[in-house]
Amino acid sequence: METRVSSATKEVIIGDERPTVLIGERINPTGKKKLAAALQAGDLELIRQEALAQVQAKADILDINVGAAGVEEITLLPQAVQAVMNVVDVPLCLDSSNPKALEAALKIYRSKPLINSVTGQENSLKEVLPLVKEYQAAVVGLTMDDEGVPKNADRRVSIARKIVERAEALGIPREDIIIDCLNLPVGADSKAGLAIIEAIRRVKAELGVNQTLGGSNISFGLPDRNLINGAFLAIVLEAGVTCPIVDVAKVRPSILAADLVLGRDKYMRRYIEAYRQRHK
Amino acid sequence: METRVSSATKEVIIGDERPTVLIGERINPTGKKKLAAALQAGDLELIRQEALAQVQAKADILDINVGAAGVEEITLLPQAVQAVMNVVDVPLCLDSSNPKALEAALKIYRSKPLINSVTGQENSLKEVLPLVKEYQAAVVGLTMDDEGVPKNADRRVSIARKIVERAEALGIPREDIIIDCLNLPVGADSKAGLAIIEAIRRVKAELGVNQTLGGSNISFGLPDRNLINGAFLAIVLEAGVTCPIVDVAKVRPSILAADLVLGRDKYMRRYIEAYRQRHK
Repeated sequence: METRVSSATKEVIIGDERPTVLIGERINPTGKKKLAAALQAGDLELIRQEALAQVQAKADILDINVGAAGVEEITLLPQAVQAVMNVVDVPLCLDSSNPKALEAALKIYRSKPLINSVTGQENSLKEVLPLVKEYQAAVVGLTMDDEGVPKNADRRVSIARKIVERAEALGIPREDIIIDCLNLPVGADSKAGLAIIEAIRRVKAELGVNQTLGGSNISFGLPDRNLINGAFLAIVLEAGVTCPIVDVAKVRPSILAADLVLGRDKYMRRYIEAYRQRHK
Repeated sequence: METRVSSATKEVIIGDERPTVLIGERINPTGKKKLAAALQAGDLELIRQEALAQVQAKADILDINVGAAGVEEITLLPQAVQAVMNVVDVPLCLDSSNPKALEAALKIYRSKPLINSVTGQENSLKEVLPLVKEYQAAVVGLTMDDEGVPKNADRRVSIARKIVERAEALGIPREDIIIDCLNLPVGADSKAGLAIIEAIRRVKAELGVNQTLGGSNISFGLPDRNLINGAFLAIVLEAGVTCPIVDVAKVRPSILAADLVLGRDKYMRRYIEAYRQRHK
C-alpha cells in the first residue's frame, strides 16, 4: 500500500518495499527549552535552522509542532509552516493536538500534507477526520484512546482498526492512514518492546497500512540510548514501520543499514552514497 | 525448547525467552594469517590468548576451529580443545568438517559439547549424527546440501527439517539440534537478507529448534560492516536466532540492547552492568 504526500514541488511515496521514509522530529519544543522560549517569543528563526539542518541530513518529511505553554498554536502553527515552506521543499507533517490549529495550517499549506494526529478518542475522530477528508490530506492515527496507550498488542490493533474503519466510512482512502503503534519505555515494562513489535506486525498483516513510530521513547531513562534505539528501529522496520519519526542526523546510517539487509536499497546506492558522504 | 551444553563446571542453556547466548567465533584461522601460521607450527599460545580474551568479553561458548592448509586436524583439534579447557571453563563448540577430527576431540572433551557441524549432505548425516548420538552432544545443522547454500527460504527450511528428522530417527532429541540458516552476503544479492530472515522465522515456527547464525557474512564486501551486522543481528534475534556465532567483544553491546527491547533481560541487569563495565 502506498501513501503519497507532497509539497508544491516534491512528492514522497511511503510504501512497503521502498526505502524507509524519514520524518524529521526536531521541530518540536517538547524537552527543548531554547526552542520553547523562541516559540513563546514568536521567533521562528530556530525553526528555519532546524528545517534546513534536517533536510541537509536527508529528512524526507518534516514534522512541525509548536505546542508549548503560552503559545497560541492557531496563530503560530500556520506561521511556522509558512516559515519552513519558505526555506525547504520537502512535504510537511502538521503536528498538533488542536484541530483548529491543524485547520489553520491546512489552509495555508500548499499540496498534500500529513496530519499528526488523530487518536481512537471519539472527540479526535469527530474533529480531525473531517479535516483529513476536506483537505485530502494523509493522517497519522495513534493507537490510544480515553484509557491512554494500551499495554498489550490486542487493544492497539483494535484501536488502529477503529481509526481505519471510521476514516473509510468518511471516504478517506485507507492508504492515507498511517498508524503509529506508540512506543512505551522498556525501562518501565520489560515486555513493552515485544507488545509494540507484535502490534506492528499485526497492523501490517490485518490492515496493510503504512506505519510510523517515534524512534526514541523505547529507551527513555536508560543509558547509551542510541544503542537501544538502533536495535529497536531495525526490528520495527522489519516488522512493518515504513516512515519512523526520528532524529534524522543521528539514526539515518542505522536505518540505511536496515534497509540494505531488508532488500529495500537496490544496488546499495543509498547506503554507499551515505557512507561516502560521512567519510569525505 | 532448551538446548543444554556444558563444560566440566558450567552449564549453558540456550532458549527462546532467555538472554541470547554468544558463541565466540575468533578461534578460527579462516582469514587470519597469524593464527593459521601458529597452527601450522603446532603453536597453541594464540588460541589460549583468544580463549581468555573472548571469555573476558563474556562469550558464553567458544567455537574451536583449527582447519588450515597443512594442519592435521585429527591431531590438532583435540590438542586445541585441551589447551582451551586448561585456561577457560565455558562449554566449547568443536568445529570441523572432518568427522575423524570431531571424534578425536569428542574423546577428550569433558561434559557435553556442541558439534559444528552436520549438513544436509548424505555423507555428513551418516558420519556426524552417529557421533552426536554416541557422545550425547548437541549439534549445529547447516542448511546446505550437495547443491550448496540455497538462495531461497523454502529449501533452507526443508534441509533443516531433513536434518531434524534424520537426527530424531537416530534417537537424538530435537533440543540437541541447533539450526544455522547460513548467512549470504547482501552485497551479492539484495534479497539475501530477506531470504535468511524468512528461513529463520519458518524454522522457528515449523521446527521450534534453537538457531545460530554467523554474524558477519551478510556485510561481506561492504563498508561500515558493523552498522550492517548490528541491524541484521537485531532483526534475526527477533526472528528466532538464540545463539549467534560472533566476535563477542565487538557486538555484545548491540546484542544486549536487542535482548533488552525483546524482553529477554529482566530488570535490565545485563544491559546496565555491561554499560557500567564499558564506562568505568
